[in-house]
Amino acid sequence: MALPRDYDGQACALARSLEAVGERWTLLILRDLFFGVRRFSDLQVHLDIPRAVLSARLTRLVETGIVERRPYGPGRDEFLLTESGTELWPVVHGLMQWGERHLVADGPVRLFAHATCGTDLAHDGTCPSCGIEPAPDDVETRPGPGVPSVIRRDAISRALREPHRLLTPVGA
Amino acid sequence: MALPRDYDGQACALARSLEAVGERWTLLILRDLFFGVRRFSDLQVHLDIPRAVLSARLTRLVETGIVERRPYGPGRDEFLLTESGTELWPVVHGLMQWGERHLVADGPVRLFAHATCGTDLAHDGTCPSCGIEPAPDDVETRPGPGVPSVIRRDAISRALREPHRLLTPVGA
Repeated sequence: MALPRDYDGQACALARSLEAVGERWTLLILRDLFFGVRRFSDLQVHLDIPRAVLSARLTRLVETGIVERRPYGPGRDEFLLTESGTELWPVVHGLMQWGERHLVADGPVRLFAHATCGTDLAHDGTCPSCGIEPAPDDVETRPGPGVPSVIRRDAISRALREPHRLLTPVGA
Repeated sequence: MALPRDYDGQACALARSLEAVGERWTLLILRDLFFGVRRFSDLQVHLDIPRAVLSARLTRLVETGIVERRPYGPGRDEFLLTESGTELWPVVHGLMQWGERHLVADGPVRLFAHATCGTDLAHDGTCPSCGIEPAPDDVETRPGPGVPSVIRRDAISRALREPHRLLTPVGA
């Protein structure tokens, strides 16, 4: 059942959001951008998706102002979340935490801590010690005790086995 | 580009969540269930989607424990969010609020207030007066000043033009 990207008949901000980020792979691309993956080739290997799909999704994210494409060398661009894109962190984190609670059998696959104080975040993204919801650049992620069913050996997967602050570049 | 529903190579709770709720229309169906729409025919008319798509999405939501199918008459079922489904409220609300802030030009399309005290919720779903994040059954929704581009005249759309408490049945 191929369905169009738009939800024309739905006069609802959720429909507008889904037109921007609801396509397959888009939220996983955003997750990687939060993790600090910035280069097309790194995103492609880490996500293990066809180049055409990644390219189409990134183009759409740039069009909707969620991602900025920035040159870093001759003919080479990197991709960064804009301010509007960064504001999607609670959604990405919330959906990940919901999956951890309801769909992952053996404990969390990935943990998130408030970088400033080191306390693990609550499910709702707040720091239980400080009582605030830290911005993503003040959040550190590390692998949890949940053993992934797939052990990935690419450079990004290896780098993300160590604690890593969100939005800090990872990889090449 | 038809892509499979699963993200087999992604050892990530977000991938698991997206396998459960990431298909087209699913989050809009969940939105309607939060609004209290429970019957197949009401969902179908309000969402204006093919019956086969709605049926496939609801079946998947029941399989993943997000929605419960409950008979209410001979040969008639209604659909309700389970406890796990209800925990998706912050994601649905967060994505809607992000769309209101970044993608809707003329003010919010829909407003949400803490039913107990009447205060409009902040973008993050907390009540500024009470300092708590009310559960969805303690949230009231009403249309905002944003004029929808599509005026719908079905019974659900008409009912939702009045203030309505989430999860309270709406419609037939």
